[in-house]
Amino acid sequence: MNGVGPERLSLNTATVRAQWDLAQCIEGCARHGIGGISPWRDKLHEMGVEAAAKAIRAAGLRVSGLCRGGWFTSTGAVDKNVIEDNRRAVDEAAALEADCLVMVVGGLPEGSRDLPKAWALVEEGLEKTLDYARTQGVKIAIEPLHPMYAADRACVNTLGQALDICDRLGEGIGCAVDVYHVWWDPDLEAQLERAGMARIMAFHLCDWLVPTRDLLNDRGMMGDGVIDLPRLRALVEKNGFEGLNEVEIFSTENWWKRDGDDVLATMVERGRTVC
Amino acid sequence: MNGVGPERLSLNTATVRAQWDLAQCIEGCARHGIGGISPWRDKLHEMGVEAAAKAIRAAGLRVSGLCRGGWFTSTGAVDKNVIEDNRRAVDEAAALEADCLVMVVGGLPEGSRDLPKAWALVEEGLEKTLDYARTQGVKIAIEPLHPMYAADRACVNTLGQALDICDRLGEGIGCAVDVYHVWWDPDLEAQLERAGMARIMAFHLCDWLVPTRDLLNDRGMMGDGVIDLPRLRALVEKNGFEGLNEVEIFSTENWWKRDGDDVLATMVERGRTVC
Repeated sequence: MNGVGPERLSLNTATVRAQWDLAQCIEGCARHGIGGISPWRDKLHEMGVEAAAKAIRAAGLRVSGLCRGGWFTSTGAVDKNVIEDNRRAVDEAAALEADCLVMVVGGLPEGSRDLPKAWALVEEGLEKTLDYARTQGVKIAIEPLHPMYAADRACVNTLGQALDICDRLGEGIGCAVDVYHVWWDPDLEAQLERAGMARIMAFHLCDWLVPTRDLLNDRGMMGDGVIDLPRLRALVEKNGFEGLNEVEIFSTENWWKRDGDDVLATMVERGRTVC
Repeated sequence: MNGVGPERLSLNTATVRAQWDLAQCIEGCARHGIGGISPWRDKLHEMGVEAAAKAIRAAGLRVSGLCRGGWFTSTGAVDKNVIEDNRRAVDEAAALEADCLVMVVGGLPEGSRDLPKAWALVEEGLEKTLDYARTQGVKIAIEPLHPMYAADRACVNTLGQALDICDRLGEGIGCAVDVYHVWWDPDLEAQLERAGMARIMAFHLCDWLVPTRDLLNDRGMMGDGVIDLPRLRALVEKNGFEGLNEVEIFSTENWWKRDGDDVLATMVERGRTVC
C-alpha cells in the first residue's frame, strides 16, 4: 500500500507560497512530474484566471481543488459581499475545471461567543453557494478544520459535523479530508465510510509535528510527524476516493524558507516512501 | 444563570503554580473565600500527603479533584511502573477525600504513529486503575483533552470518546469536563446529556484566547476569551452536576507572572461576573 508516485500528487500552492507565484508553481509541477495543482485564490488572481487556466491545461495538470471559498461568518451575517465572493470563487473553480471548491467556513464572528449562531450562518452560506455551484457544475467541499481553529478560521471541526451538513443540503457537496485536521478523530474511520465516494472530494497531506510550535504555520512534511499516512490514505481509497493526494504545508520557519525545487523534490520523495 | 460565588469555585493549583506552593494555595483559598481546591501531585508531594490533607480539612476546603493520574502510554506498555504510579495516585485521592482522580491518559508512545494501539493501552490502564480505585472508594475521571494534544498528552479527545470507554468499563468512572478542551465540539450538548450526573465528575473553567500563542501555556482567564461559559455551565448543571467550578489556567506569559492574590481576586470577580 505504501507509496504514491508524483503523478498521483498535487501541489497546493500554499506549500511554496513564500517562494513561488502560480506560474512558477505550474512550471515546478511539470518539472517534477507532479500530476496536479491546487491554487489559492490570491495567487490565481495575481496571474489572472484565464491565463492560469490556459497554463495549467498546457502543462497537463489536473486541478485537485481551488482554495478557498467560505468565510461565511466574517461579518456576522451572510450578506451580499460574502455571497458574491463565493459566487466568484465558484466561477473560478469552473474556469479551472477544478475537482472541487474547498470551503473554509469561518469561525466565530468578531466579538461573538455564540457558536450555534456561527454554525447556522455557515449552513446558510453553504446552501446559497451550493445553489449557484450546481448551476455551474462545481462541487463544494467543506474542509473540516482542526478544532484549534474553531474560534478564528472554521467552526466545522469534524468530518461527522461536515457530513451532517452535507446530508441536510443534498447532492453536489462533500468534504475535503486533510490529515492534519482529522488524524486524531476516533470517529474518523466510521465517518469516512459514511462519506463514501460521493462525499470525499479531496485528500490533503502533510504531517503533525511534535512539538508543534505554532497553531497555524508549523505543519510538517510527510514523514516528519506522527500521522499514520498509509492508514489514512488506505481509508479514503477504500471508501472510493480516486482523486490526487494534495500536499498542503504551512511552514513559516522551515519549508517556506527553502528553495522551491527542494520542497517539491522532497515532497515527491516522501510521497514514494512514507505515504 | 450568570454568576458563581467564590464558595462555588475551586482553585486548581496549576493556576498559580509559578507563584505558590500548596500551603500557600490553601491559605489563599481561605483568604479569598474560595470553596475548594484541586492539587497537582507535584505540589502535593512537596508538602506531604498527610500534612496537605490535614491543612485542607482545617481550612474547610472541598477537594474537587486530584491532578493527575494516567499517562498510560508513556512506555508503550501498561507496565508495573505505570500501574503502581496510578495506584499511588488513587491512594492520595482517597487520603484527600477528593471528588475524583483526574486522568490525563497519555498520547502516542515515543516513536509510534499507531493511534488505535494507544487507545487500547489507555483503556487497559484505566480498567486496571479502576479495579483498584473501586476498592478505595475513589472515582476516576477521564479528562478528554483538546485534539491538539492527541500526540503528546492525551489520545482521548472528545467527551463522546471518553463516555464510550466509561460505558465499557462500568461504574465508578466518568469525565472531567474542561471548557478549554470541549467548547468547540458540536456534539457536546448531546454527550453531556448522555453523561448525566453519574459521569460528570468535574467541571473546569478557563477561556480560549484569540489568538492563542502557545498550544500548552496560553490559556485565558474566564471572560478574556471566546467560550460561552454560562451556556456550558448551564449544560453541566442541567445534567445533574453539583460539584465546584474549578479554575485551571496555564499561562506562562500572563497569569503565572502576576501576584497570586491578584490572580485569585480576579478569578473570584470573574466567577461572579462572567461565568
